Amino acid sequence: MSELKLTPRAEDFSEWYNQVVLRADLADYAPVRGCMIIKPYGWTLWENMQAALDRRFKATGHLNAAFPLFIPQSFIAKEAKHVEGFAPQLAVVTHGGGELLEEPLVVRPTSETIIGHAYAKWIKSYRDLPVLINLWNSVVRWEVRTKLFLRTLEFWWQEGHTAHATYAEAQAETIQMLNVYADFAVNEAAVPVIPGRKSESEKFAGADTTYSIEAMMGDTKALQAATSHNLGQNFAKSFEIRYLDKNNELQYCWTTSWGFSTRVIGAIIMVHGDDQGLILPPRLAPYQVVIVPIFKNDAEQGPVMEAVSRVKQQLTDFRVKVDEREETPGFKFNDWELRGVPLRLEIGPKDVQKGTVALARRDKPGKQGKSFVPQEGLGTLVAETLADIHASLYDRALAFRQANTHDPKTYEEFKQAVEKGWAFSWWCGGGECEETKATTRNIPLEQPGGTGKCIHCGQPAKEKAIFAKAY
Amino acid sequence: MSELKLTPRAEDFSEWYNQVVLRADLADYAPVRGCMIIKPYGWTLWENMQAALDRRFKATGHLNAAFPLFIPQSFIAKEAKHVEGFAPQLAVVTHGGGELLEEPLVVRPTSETIIGHAYAKWIKSYRDLPVLINLWNSVVRWEVRTKLFLRTLEFWWQEGHTAHATYAEAQAETIQMLNVYADFAVNEAAVPVIPGRKSESEKFAGADTTYSIEAMMGDTKALQAATSHNLGQNFAKSFEIRYLDKNNELQYCWTTSWGFSTRVIGAIIMVHGDDQGLILPPRLAPYQVVIVPIFKNDAEQGPVMEAVSRVKQQLTDFRVKVDEREETPGFKFNDWELRGVPLRLEIGPKDVQKGTVALARRDKPGKQGKSFVPQEGLGTLVAETLADIHASLYDRALAFRQANTHDPKTYEEFKQAVEKGWAFSWWCGGGECEETKATTRNIPLEQPGGTGKCIHCGQPAKEKAIFAKAY
Repeated sequence: MSELKLTPRAEDFSEWYNQVVLRADLADYAPVRGCMIIKPYGWTLWENMQAALDRRFKATGHLNAAFPLFIPQSFIAKEAKHVEGFAPQLAVVTHGGGELLEEPLVVRPTSETIIGHAYAKWIKSYRDLPVLINLWNSVVRWEVRTKLFLRTLEFWWQEGHTAHATYAEAQAETIQMLNVYADFAVNEAAVPVIPGRKSESEKFAGADTTYSIEAMMGDTKALQAATSHNLGQNFAKSFEIRYLDKNNELQYCWTTSWGFSTRVIGAIIMVHGDDQGLILPPRLAPYQVVIVPIFKNDAEQGPVMEAVSRVKQQLTDFRVKVDEREETPGFKFNDWELRGVPLRLEIGPKDVQKGTVALARRDKPGKQGKSFVPQEGLGTLVAETLADIHASLYDRALAFRQANTHDPKTYEEFKQAVEKGWAFSWWCGGGECEETKATTRNIPLEQPGGTGKCIHCGQPAKEKAIFAKAY
Repeated sequence: MSELKLTPRAEDFSEWYNQVVLRADLADYAPVRGCMIIKPYGWTLWENMQAALDRRFKATGHLNAAFPLFIPQSFIAKEAKHVEGFAPQLAVVTHGGGELLEEPLVVRPTSETIIGHAYAKWIKSYRDLPVLINLWNSVVRWEVRTKLFLRTLEFWWQEGHTAHATYAEAQAETIQMLNVYADFAVNEAAVPVIPGRKSESEKFAGADTTYSIEAMMGDTKALQAATSHNLGQNFAKSFEIRYLDKNNELQYCWTTSWGFSTRVIGAIIMVHGDDQGLILPPRLAPYQVVIVPIFKNDAEQGPVMEAVSRVKQQLTDFRVKVDEREETPGFKFNDWELRGVPLRLEIGPKDVQKGTVALARRDKPGKQGKSFVPQEGLGTLVAETLADIHASLYDRALAFRQANTHDPKTYEEFKQAVEKGWAFSWWCGGGECEETKATTRNIPLEQPGGTGKCIHCGQPAKEKAIFAKAY
């Protein structure tokens, strides 16, 4: 398949994206409308993402657990805003074991309600707090328009659910997890993000406040890469999550939830990819290094494969693939470029003689990213080069975002700005002033200070918001 | 809760089991009939089990992927035996997004059918083989009688699915994975198991041959801890999984599947536990070592906690919990005994003076398992002691199985034998001779050689089988 050129990004970004997902072997369409199969290459990427996040969750005191897939339909209705948001999107199990169920079960769209039920049972006293639990699972939301990784009926994610004694603790947790996501995005995925607060109309159904990290894709649209919700006492009151405080008085808990999903794989594709295909950030790539042996005949094969083996032994700190398929080197180069492996090593008969390897960086195609280096000491050079690729991917994405983020002076300019990128503009906070073709993405935590005039109505505004078209 | 004594195993094994699961904080009942919540302590145990198995899967060339939860109902019907086995157990989604679905979707009870559909699409040529994929997920089977971990409507497991060019390769894979499970059971869970072939009536719905590992629980009943199926060409023919061989001729693939679930947590509880609660095998325990500081007042607290901190620093190779709760040492001892932590270290003022710690083994309650050892060099001693606990748990379970496995001479003796343990008896292989109160568990791969007479009908028998009551 790799021989066929991809549709160029500039020509049709959406089509380029679909082709990359399928041809890089990340995922496939499932036989059920709107569902996906994540293939081993895509799932290994997700496993690396999971490991990097899970480490951070555990370092901040969270443990994983598993909650049921099925939620009694009546649970969803207990929190008024929650049911309003999720009822239209539910998949409903009506039959089990050949019989009609007394109460239909919904396939979880998210677990706040069943978590609320359990926490109400488990939490008795202030000594039981905080409860810090995370779930890795899949959830189902009946979407109409779907796209691989970005929006599917079933998607894989983690959902953290915590309960606290005070508002301040819940708020600190909400911000802590937002920062964990931002740290992951920057330091693992090489994706620059803006942490901020969602507007009232964009917040999670049932939250007091929702925070998000927002990233700019290669077509300048925004993608919400993760969210962290301060749920206030909304779910605590709907599900009677209470604790006895030190004065032996019953108090409602304060709860949070926060989630990060496989759609971030879509973000990684759209932030870093180019017309040759995927470019994977080195810390998450299933293979960080691919070695392509080059030989014309049996006489060359022996010494080349010996050198490959010696080189591979120097690279035990990395995820390395030796491509021994019966294909031409050119085919293999294209294939691994399409699949986004950050670093390619080529070893041929001349390299055997000279004790060298050819090293090709995926982020700098062609001669610009190619060098010939000694086999000796290769481990250190590979570590440095991967770190440099990470940094250069991040810098490029940040420069792109900065170049495409505008500060329009008038509403006319604003309307043009959101056609071609992001607008970072003063906003009065009013719902009417949010109704542009673009949506408010978030109100960044980092603000310029001072006040201004709402870009839409001209009324005084205390904060600037990001406005953009979004996935 | 820990103050209450558990029901003794000898009095009511089933009640003891339920109490251990709940009070050791492994799991809880979900608000949906027959479903469970796996709490952080239980899930961390499962994560350790997953990691130990996943390592073995990857070392044998498998990669993980994710397949959809939903399977079109028509898929299940494509393999005749498969639909016969699974149709009565299905959960069915009839509505999505507020509308009646054209074709109902079943929640996967296992993924052979949707895997078959995908493999038929992905596999073109012998170059694409073997396909070696594993899935970690949960599945749903509508069970009538349920018990935490052992049989729930939803359970968590892994399901491996492979496709091969020849029968011999598929058979080698089937046996390889059976051996992986046995190796895990013995070397990670300290559970002795018997690998063998299931009888025709006990095999997986759609398999040519099913293999299992069987373990004896503390009440002498058997538990099937994992299965590995050679599916022959059954699913390949139902789903048209074909490849072009080297002669450019279309051939059907040979497929396998193999699974291991959270019910093995139940096995670990029932094999090792005692009247004080859980005893966790050291290599899988969420905490391998718990440190209980002992002090009466502030003056003692400082030096004790300093010693605890020094000791903990020596134990960075292990999963260590320092219990700093405001509870009495006695409460903590009982609590961690109930929760099965293999090794407890106690550090009090006298230990500070003498540079010692008290070390208590969970597998040997009371004075027998207690010793006073120097703080210096503790890392080595802990490693050795944990290894010894693993070995002694395994030996104890093996001796128990041997003591309760009988070789009855007559059918009368046989009937008595399966009331009090296992019978290992010659069996002609006939279905009628299988209909005892107990079932054939498997026909062990390891046979005594020679032939005998069927324990039931007296006809010639080539193999001996294990007969037992089972979970």
